[in-house]
Amino acid sequence: MSLHRLEISTQQRMELVDLTAKLKGLVRQSGVREGICVVAVMHTTAGITVNENTDPHVRDDILAALERAVPSSGHYTHAEGNAHAHVKSSLVGHSTALVVSDGKLQLGSWQAVYLCEFDGPRRREVQVKLQADK
Amino acid sequence: MSLHRLEISTQQRMELVDLTAKLKGLVRQSGVREGICVVAVMHTTAGITVNENTDPHVRDDILAALERAVPSSGHYTHAEGNAHAHVKSSLVGHSTALVVSDGKLQLGSWQAVYLCEFDGPRRREVQVKLQADK
Amino acid sequence: MSLHRLEISTQQRMELVDLTAKLKGLVRQSGVREGICVVAVMHTTAGITVNENTDPHVRDDILAALERAVPSSGHYTHAEGNAHAHVKSSLVGHSTALVVSDGKLQLGSWQAVYLCEFDGPRRREVQVKLQADK
Repeated sequence: MSLHRLEISTQQRMELVDLTAKLKGLVRQSGVREGICVVAVMHTTAGITVNENTDPHVRDDILAALERAVPSSGHYTHAEGNAHAHVKSSLVGHSTALVVSDGKLQLGSWQAVYLCEFDGPRRREVQVKLQADK
Repeated sequence: MSLHRLEISTQQRMELVDLTAKLKGLVRQSGVREGICVVAVMHTTAGITVNENTDPHVRDDILAALERAVPSSGHYTHAEGNAHAHVKSSLVGHSTALVVSDGKLQLGSWQAVYLCEFDGPRRREVQVKLQADK
Repeated sequence: MSLHRLEISTQQRMELVDLTAKLKGLVRQSGVREGICVVAVMHTTAGITVNENTDPHVRDDILAALERAVPSSGHYTHAEGNAHAHVKSSLVGHSTALVVSDGKLQLGSWQAVYLCEFDGPRRREVQVKLQADK
Protein backbone atom coordinates (compact mmCIF):
# COMPACT_ATOMS: atom_id res chain seq x y z
CA MET A 1 0.00 0.00 0.00
CA SER A 2 1.51 3.25 -1.13
CA LEU A 3 -0.36 5.74 1.07
CA HIS A 4 1.05 6.69 4.45
CA ARG A 5 -0.45 8.88 7.13
CA LEU A 6 1.94 10.79 9.37
CA GLU A 7 0.69 12.14 12.68
CA ILE A 8 2.66 15.23 13.71
CA SER A 9 2.21 17.04 17.02
CA THR A 10 3.34 20.60 16.47
CA GLN A 11 4.82 22.48 19.42
CA GLN A 12 4.50 26.16 18.55
CA ARG A 13 1.81 28.54 17.38
CA MET A 14 3.70 28.91 14.10
CA GLU A 15 6.60 26.72 13.05
CA LEU A 16 8.08 24.71 10.20
CA VAL A 17 8.49 21.03 11.04
CA ASP A 18 11.04 19.13 8.93
CA LEU A 19 9.48 15.99 7.41
CA THR A 20 12.41 15.08 5.15
CA ALA A 21 13.90 12.20 7.14
CA LYS A 22 10.45 10.60 7.55
CA LEU A 23 9.72 10.98 3.83
CA LYS A 24 13.07 9.52 2.82
CA GLY A 25 12.38 6.56 5.12
CA LEU A 26 8.96 5.97 3.54
CA VAL A 27 10.44 6.03 0.03
CA ARG A 28 13.14 3.56 1.08
CA GLN A 29 10.64 1.16 2.70
CA SER A 30 8.23 1.40 -0.26
CA GLY A 31 10.69 -0.04 -2.74
CA VAL A 32 9.50 2.52 -5.32
CA ARG A 33 12.40 3.19 -7.74
CA GLU A 34 10.84 5.70 -10.13
CA GLY A 35 7.68 7.67 -9.51
CA ILE A 36 5.93 10.65 -7.97
CA CYS A 37 5.41 11.54 -4.30
CA VAL A 38 2.53 13.79 -3.22
CA VAL A 39 2.74 15.22 0.31
CA ALA A 40 -0.50 16.81 1.53
CA VAL A 41 -1.67 18.20 4.86
CA MET A 42 -5.29 17.48 5.80
CA HIS A 43 -5.91 20.85 7.50
CA THR A 44 -6.74 24.39 6.41
CA THR A 45 -4.50 26.34 8.79
CA ALA A 46 -1.32 24.51 7.84
CA GLY A 47 0.67 23.94 4.64
CA ILE A 48 3.51 22.07 2.99
CA THR A 49 6.58 23.83 1.60
CA VAL A 50 10.08 23.00 0.39
CA ASN A 51 12.89 25.25 1.57
CA GLU A 52 16.38 25.49 3.11
CA ASN A 53 17.44 22.63 5.36
CA THR A 54 20.37 24.14 7.24
CA ASP A 55 20.11 27.61 8.74
CA PRO A 56 17.02 27.69 11.02
CA HIS A 57 16.93 31.46 10.53
CA VAL A 58 15.43 30.86 7.09
CA ARG A 59 12.41 29.22 8.73
CA ASP A 60 12.08 32.19 11.08
CA ASP A 61 12.33 34.59 8.14
CA ILE A 62 9.64 32.74 6.17
CA LEU A 63 7.23 32.84 9.12
CA ALA A 64 8.05 36.50 9.85
CA ALA A 65 7.60 37.57 6.22
CA LEU A 66 4.26 35.74 6.01
CA GLU A 67 3.25 37.43 9.26
CA ARG A 68 4.14 40.87 7.86
CA ALA A 69 2.15 40.19 4.68
CA VAL A 70 -0.81 38.61 6.53
CA PRO A 71 -0.70 39.77 10.18
CA SER A 72 -2.36 37.51 12.75
CA SER A 73 -3.58 40.67 14.48
CA GLY A 74 -5.15 42.11 11.31
CA HIS A 75 -8.86 42.64 10.72
CA TYR A 76 -10.70 39.60 9.36
CA THR A 77 -14.35 38.56 9.17
CA HIS A 78 -13.80 34.90 10.19
CA ALA A 79 -14.56 34.83 13.91
CA GLU A 80 -12.17 32.14 15.15
CA GLY A 81 -9.07 34.34 15.32
CA ASN A 82 -7.11 32.18 12.89
CA ALA A 83 -8.13 33.77 9.58
CA HIS A 84 -4.49 34.72 8.97
CA ALA A 85 -3.57 31.03 9.21
CA HIS A 86 -6.08 30.11 6.50
CA VAL A 87 -4.61 32.77 4.20
CA LYS A 88 -1.05 31.60 4.85
CA SER A 89 -2.15 28.05 4.04
CA SER A 90 -3.37 29.14 0.60
CA LEU A 91 -0.16 31.11 0.01
CA VAL A 92 2.24 28.22 0.63
CA GLY A 93 -0.21 25.53 -0.50
CA HIS A 94 -1.60 22.44 1.22
CA SER A 95 0.42 19.97 -0.86
CA THR A 96 3.52 19.54 -2.97
CA ALA A 97 4.55 17.15 -5.73
CA LEU A 98 8.01 15.58 -5.58
CA VAL A 99 9.97 13.26 -7.85
CA VAL A 100 11.28 9.82 -6.87
CA SER A 101 14.14 8.45 -8.95
CA ASP A 102 16.70 5.69 -8.43
CA GLY A 103 14.81 4.79 -5.24
CA LYS A 104 15.38 8.24 -3.73
CA LEU A 105 13.33 11.34 -3.08
CA GLN A 106 14.75 13.94 -5.47
CA LEU A 107 15.67 17.05 -3.49
CA GLY A 108 18.46 19.57 -4.00
CA SER A 109 21.37 19.65 -1.54
CA TRP A 110 19.72 22.41 0.49
CA GLN A 111 16.08 21.36 0.20
CA ALA A 112 13.90 20.03 3.01
CA VAL A 113 10.15 19.37 3.01
CA TYR A 114 8.33 21.19 5.80
CA LEU A 115 4.94 20.99 7.43
CA CYS A 116 4.00 24.64 8.03
CA GLU A 117 2.05 25.12 11.25
CA PHE A 118 0.18 28.44 11.27
CA ASP A 119 -2.30 27.85 14.14
CA GLY A 120 -0.70 25.46 16.59
CA PRO A 121 0.15 23.71 18.65
CA ARG A 122 -2.07 20.96 17.24
CA ARG A 123 -2.04 17.36 16.12
CA ARG A 124 -1.75 17.32 12.32
CA GLU A 125 -2.19 14.60 9.72
CA VAL A 126 0.03 14.57 6.63
CA GLN A 127 -0.62 12.11 3.81
CA VAL A 128 2.28 10.81 1.76
CA LYS A 129 1.35 9.12 -1.50
CA LEU A 130 3.95 7.26 -3.51
CA GLN A 131 2.97 6.41 -7.05
CA ALA A 132 5.40 4.18 -8.94
CA ASP A 133 5.80 4.32 -12.71
CA LYS A 134 4.03 1.47 -14.43
CA MET B 1 -10.49 8.22 -20.16
CA SER B 2 -9.20 9.80 -17.00
CA LEU B 3 -9.10 13.48 -18.00
CA HIS B 4 -12.14 15.65 -17.38
CA ARG B 5 -12.71 19.25 -18.40
CA LEU B 6 -14.98 21.32 -16.17
CA GLU B 7 -16.49 24.50 -17.55
CA ILE B 8 -17.17 27.00 -14.76
CA SER B 9 -18.92 30.34 -15.26
CA THR B 10 -17.78 32.59 -12.46
CA GLN B 11 -20.17 35.28 -11.22
CA GLN B 12 -18.01 37.84 -9.45
CA ARG B 13 -14.91 39.85 -10.16
CA MET B 14 -13.13 37.87 -7.44
CA GLU B 15 -14.53 34.77 -5.80
CA LEU B 16 -13.73 31.25 -4.65
CA VAL B 17 -15.91 28.62 -6.37
CA ASP B 18 -16.19 25.30 -4.54
CA LEU B 19 -15.34 22.39 -6.87
CA THR B 20 -15.33 19.67 -4.22
CA ALA B 21 -18.69 18.02 -4.98
CA LYS B 22 -17.86 17.89 -8.71
CA LEU B 23 -14.43 16.41 -8.00
CA LYS B 24 -15.83 13.78 -5.65
CA GLY B 25 -18.35 12.84 -8.33
CA LEU B 26 -15.61 12.44 -10.94
CA VAL B 27 -13.57 10.22 -8.64
CA ARG B 28 -16.63 8.06 -7.93
CA GLN B 29 -17.51 7.68 -11.62
CA SER B 30 -13.91 6.94 -12.60
CA GLY B 31 -13.68 3.81 -10.50
CA VAL B 32 -10.14 4.81 -9.47
CA ARG B 33 -9.44 3.25 -6.05
CA GLU B 34 -5.86 4.40 -5.42
CA GLY B 35 -4.09 7.19 -7.24
CA ILE B 36 -3.35 10.87 -7.71
CA CYS B 37 -5.67 13.68 -8.82
CA VAL B 38 -4.27 16.84 -10.44
CA VAL B 39 -6.66 19.81 -10.64
CA ALA B 40 -5.43 22.61 -12.92
CA VAL B 41 -6.98 25.82 -14.22
CA MET B 42 -6.17 26.73 -17.84
CA HIS B 43 -6.00 30.51 -17.23
CA THR B 44 -3.46 32.98 -15.90
CA THR B 45 -5.75 35.21 -13.83
CA ALA B 46 -7.24 32.36 -11.79
CA GLY B 47 -5.92 29.67 -9.48
CA ILE B 48 -6.70 26.52 -7.52
CA THR B 49 -6.50 26.34 -3.73
CA VAL B 50 -7.59 24.08 -0.90
CA ASN B 51 -9.13 25.76 2.14
CA GLU B 52 -12.00 25.82 4.66
CA ASN B 53 -15.35 24.45 3.49
CA THR B 54 -17.72 25.87 6.06
CA ASP B 55 -17.53 29.53 7.06
CA PRO B 56 -17.77 31.64 3.86
CA HIS B 57 -15.97 34.43 5.76
CA VAL B 58 -12.73 32.51 5.26
CA ARG B 59 -13.11 32.89 1.49
CA ASP B 60 -13.72 36.62 1.95
CA ASP B 61 -10.68 36.89 4.21
CA ILE B 62 -8.45 35.09 1.69
CA LEU B 63 -9.54 37.39 -1.14
CA ALA B 64 -9.21 40.50 1.07
CA ALA B 65 -5.74 39.53 2.31
CA LEU B 66 -4.55 38.86 -1.25
CA GLU B 67 -6.02 42.22 -2.27
CA ARG B 68 -4.12 43.98 0.55
CA ALA B 69 -0.87 42.28 -0.45
CA VAL B 70 -1.42 42.81 -4.20
CA PRO B 71 -3.94 45.66 -4.67
CA SER B 72 -5.94 45.67 -7.90
CA SER B 73 -5.57 49.46 -7.90
CA GLY B 74 -1.77 49.34 -7.54
CA HIS B 75 0.74 50.44 -10.15
CA TYR B 76 1.64 47.80 -12.72
CA THR B 77 3.24 47.86 -16.16
CA HIS B 78 0.86 45.33 -17.78
CA ALA B 79 -1.75 47.47 -19.55
CA GLU B 80 -4.88 45.33 -19.28
CA GLY B 81 -5.76 46.34 -15.71
CA ASN B 82 -5.60 42.77 -14.41
CA ALA B 83 -1.91 42.56 -13.48
CA HIS B 84 -2.90 42.01 -9.83
CA ALA B 85 -4.87 38.93 -10.93
CA HIS B 86 -1.81 37.43 -12.62
CA VAL B 87 0.23 37.93 -9.44
CA LYS B 88 -2.49 36.37 -7.27
CA SER B 89 -2.57 33.39 -9.63
CA SER B 90 1.14 32.76 -9.08
CA LEU B 91 0.71 33.15 -5.31
CA VAL B 92 -2.01 30.51 -4.90
CA GLY B 93 -0.86 28.43 -7.87
CA HIS B 94 -2.62 27.25 -11.02
CA SER B 95 -2.88 23.61 -9.92
CA THR B 96 -2.91 21.30 -6.93
CA ALA B 97 -2.10 17.64 -6.39
CA LEU B 98 -4.51 15.53 -4.34
CA VAL B 99 -4.52 11.92 -3.16
CA VAL B 100 -7.18 9.33 -4.04
CA SER B 101 -7.47 6.34 -1.71
CA ASP B 102 -10.15 3.73 -1.09
CA GLY B 103 -12.04 5.21 -4.05
CA LYS B 104 -12.28 8.63 -2.37
CA LEU B 105 -10.65 12.02 -2.77
CA GLN B 106 -8.54 12.43 0.38
CA LEU B 107 -9.45 15.74 2.03
CA GLY B 108 -9.55 16.71 5.69
CA SER B 109 -12.92 17.32 7.37
CA TRP B 110 -12.70 21.05 6.73
CA GLN B 111 -11.03 21.05 3.32
CA ALA B 112 -12.63 22.07 0.04
CA VAL B 113 -10.99 22.56 -3.38
CA TYR B 114 -11.63 26.01 -4.85
CA LEU B 115 -11.30 27.63 -8.22
CA CYS B 116 -10.01 31.13 -7.43
CA GLU B 117 -11.39 33.77 -9.77
CA PHE B 118 -9.29 36.94 -9.71
CA ASP B 119 -10.53 38.66 -12.90
CA GLY B 120 -14.14 37.63 -13.46
CA PRO B 121 -16.79 37.10 -14.24
CA ARG B 122 -15.58 34.75 -16.97
CA ARG B 123 -15.97 31.26 -18.33
CA ARG B 124 -13.11 29.12 -16.96
CA GLU B 125 -11.84 25.66 -17.84
CA VAL B 126 -10.52 23.40 -15.10
CA GLN B 127 -8.86 20.10 -15.97
CA VAL B 128 -9.16 17.18 -13.58
CA LYS B 129 -6.72 14.35 -14.17
CA LEU B 130 -7.10 11.07 -12.31
CA GLN B 131 -4.13 8.76 -12.47
CA ALA B 132 -4.64 5.32 -10.98
CA ASP B 133 -1.82 3.31 -9.44
CA LYS B 134 -0.62 0.59 -11.78
CA MET C 1 13.53 6.86 -18.75
CA SER C 2 10.97 9.46 -17.85
CA LEU C 3 13.06 11.85 -15.72
CA HIS C 4 14.87 14.73 -17.36
CA ARG C 5 17.25 17.22 -15.79
CA LEU C 6 17.37 20.70 -17.32
CA GLU C 7 20.35 22.93 -16.62
CA ILE C 8 19.39 26.60 -16.83
CA SER C 9 21.85 29.46 -16.52
CA THR C 10 19.88 32.47 -15.34
CA GLN C 11 21.06 35.93 -16.40
CA GLN C 12 19.49 38.35 -13.91
CA ARG C 13 19.24 38.73 -10.16
CA MET C 14 15.49 38.12 -10.47
CA GLU C 15 13.78 36.89 -13.60
CA LEU C 16 11.22 34.45 -14.99
CA VAL C 17 12.71 32.02 -17.53
CA ASP C 18 10.23 30.42 -19.92
CA LEU C 19 10.60 26.62 -19.91
CA THR C 20 7.53 25.85 -22.02
CA ALA C 21 9.21 25.03 -25.34
CA LYS C 22 11.69 22.72 -23.60
CA LEU C 23 8.89 20.97 -21.70
CA LYS C 24 6.78 20.51 -24.83
CA GLY C 25 9.82 19.01 -26.56
CA LEU C 26 10.38 16.55 -23.69
CA VAL C 27 6.74 15.46 -23.77
CA ARG C 28 6.94 14.93 -27.55
CA GLN C 29 10.16 12.90 -27.33
CA SER C 30 8.87 10.80 -24.42
CA GLY C 31 5.98 9.35 -26.37
CA VAL C 32 3.75 9.74 -23.29
CA ARG C 33 0.15 10.14 -24.50
CA GLU C 34 -1.72 10.44 -21.20
CA GLY C 35 -0.18 11.21 -17.84
CA ILE C 36 1.15 13.69 -15.33
CA CYS C 37 4.18 15.99 -15.55
CA VAL C 38 5.90 17.26 -12.41
CA VAL C 39 8.32 20.18 -12.87
CA ALA C 40 10.50 20.88 -9.82
CA VAL C 41 13.45 23.18 -9.17
CA MET C 42 16.23 21.75 -6.98
CA HIS C 43 17.03 25.05 -5.19
CA THR C 44 15.58 27.06 -2.32
CA THR C 45 15.90 30.57 -3.76
CA ALA C 46 14.02 29.78 -6.97
CA GLY C 47 10.56 28.51 -7.87
CA ILE C 48 8.27 27.23 -10.61
CA THR C 49 5.13 29.06 -11.68
CA VAL C 50 2.62 29.07 -14.53
CA ASN C 51 1.58 32.44 -15.90
CA GLU C 52 1.04 34.62 -18.99
CA ASN C 53 3.15 33.78 -22.06
CA THR C 54 2.82 36.97 -24.13
CA ASP C 55 3.25 40.37 -22.50
CA PRO C 56 6.64 40.40 -20.71
CA HIS C 57 5.26 43.17 -18.46
CA VAL C 58 3.35 40.49 -16.57
CA ARG C 59 6.65 38.88 -15.55
CA ASP C 60 7.94 42.27 -14.42
CA ASP C 61 4.73 42.88 -12.45
CA ILE C 62 4.96 39.49 -10.72
CA LEU C 63 8.56 40.11 -9.66
CA ALA C 64 7.76 43.69 -8.57
CA ALA C 65 4.70 42.64 -6.55
CA LEU C 66 6.68 39.88 -4.82
CA GLU C 67 9.41 42.44 -4.10
CA ARG C 68 6.87 44.83 -2.55
CA ALA C 69 5.43 42.04 -0.37
CA VAL C 70 8.87 40.62 0.56
CA PRO C 71 11.51 43.33 0.00
CA SER C 72 15.05 42.16 -0.68
CA SER C 73 16.24 45.09 1.44
CA GLY C 74 14.02 44.14 4.42
CA HIS C 75 15.24 42.96 7.81
CA TYR C 76 15.86 39.22 8.05
CA THR C 77 17.79 36.99 10.44
CA HIS C 78 19.36 34.75 7.73
CA ALA C 79 22.82 36.21 7.17
CA GLU C 80 23.39 35.51 3.48
CA GLY C 81 21.39 38.46 2.15
CA ASN C 82 18.98 36.28 0.18
CA ALA C 83 16.34 35.59 2.83
CA HIS C 84 13.75 37.37 0.65
CA ALA C 85 14.50 34.85 -2.12
CA HIS C 86 13.78 31.92 0.19
CA VAL C 87 10.44 33.47 1.15
CA LYS C 88 9.50 34.11 -2.49
CA SER C 89 10.35 30.49 -3.28
CA SER C 90 7.84 29.27 -0.69
CA LEU C 91 5.21 31.72 -1.99
CA VAL C 92 5.30 30.55 -5.62
CA GLY C 93 6.33 26.99 -4.77
CA HIS C 94 9.27 24.84 -5.84
CA SER C 95 7.22 22.59 -8.14
CA THR C 96 4.06 22.34 -10.18
CA ALA C 97 1.91 19.47 -11.44
CA LEU C 98 0.74 19.53 -15.06
CA VAL C 99 -1.48 17.29 -17.16
CA VAL C 100 -0.38 15.47 -20.34
CA SER C 101 -3.14 14.40 -22.70
CA ASP C 102 -3.23 13.36 -26.36
CA GLY C 103 0.57 13.49 -26.31
CA LYS C 104 0.59 17.18 -25.37
CA LEU C 105 1.31 19.23 -22.30
CA GLN C 106 -2.07 20.69 -21.29
CA LEU C 107 -1.76 24.44 -20.96
CA GLY C 108 -4.24 27.20 -21.67
CA SER C 109 -3.67 29.51 -24.66
CA TRP C 110 -1.93 32.10 -22.50
CA GLN C 111 -0.08 29.83 -20.10
CA ALA C 112 3.67 29.32 -19.93
CA VAL C 113 5.72 27.45 -17.30
CA TYR C 114 8.44 29.59 -15.74
CA LEU C 115 11.52 29.00 -13.66
CA CYS C 116 11.49 31.87 -11.15
CA GLU C 117 14.99 33.11 -10.33
CA PHE C 118 15.03 35.11 -7.08
CA ASP C 119 18.78 35.12 -6.32
CA GLY C 120 20.66 34.98 -9.59
CA PRO C 121 22.40 34.86 -11.80
CA ARG C 122 23.10 31.18 -11.10
CA ARG C 123 23.13 27.77 -12.70
CA ARG C 124 19.86 26.02 -11.81
CA GLU C 125 18.67 22.43 -12.15
CA VAL C 126 15.05 21.72 -12.97
CA GLN C 127 13.72 18.17 -12.93
CA VAL C 128 10.93 17.19 -15.31
CA LYS C 129 9.17 13.94 -14.48
CA LEU C 130 6.71 12.41 -16.93
CA GLN C 131 4.52 9.68 -15.54
CA ALA C 132 2.38 7.86 -18.08
CA ASP C 133 -0.95 6.31 -17.18
CA LYS C 134 -0.67 2.56 -16.78
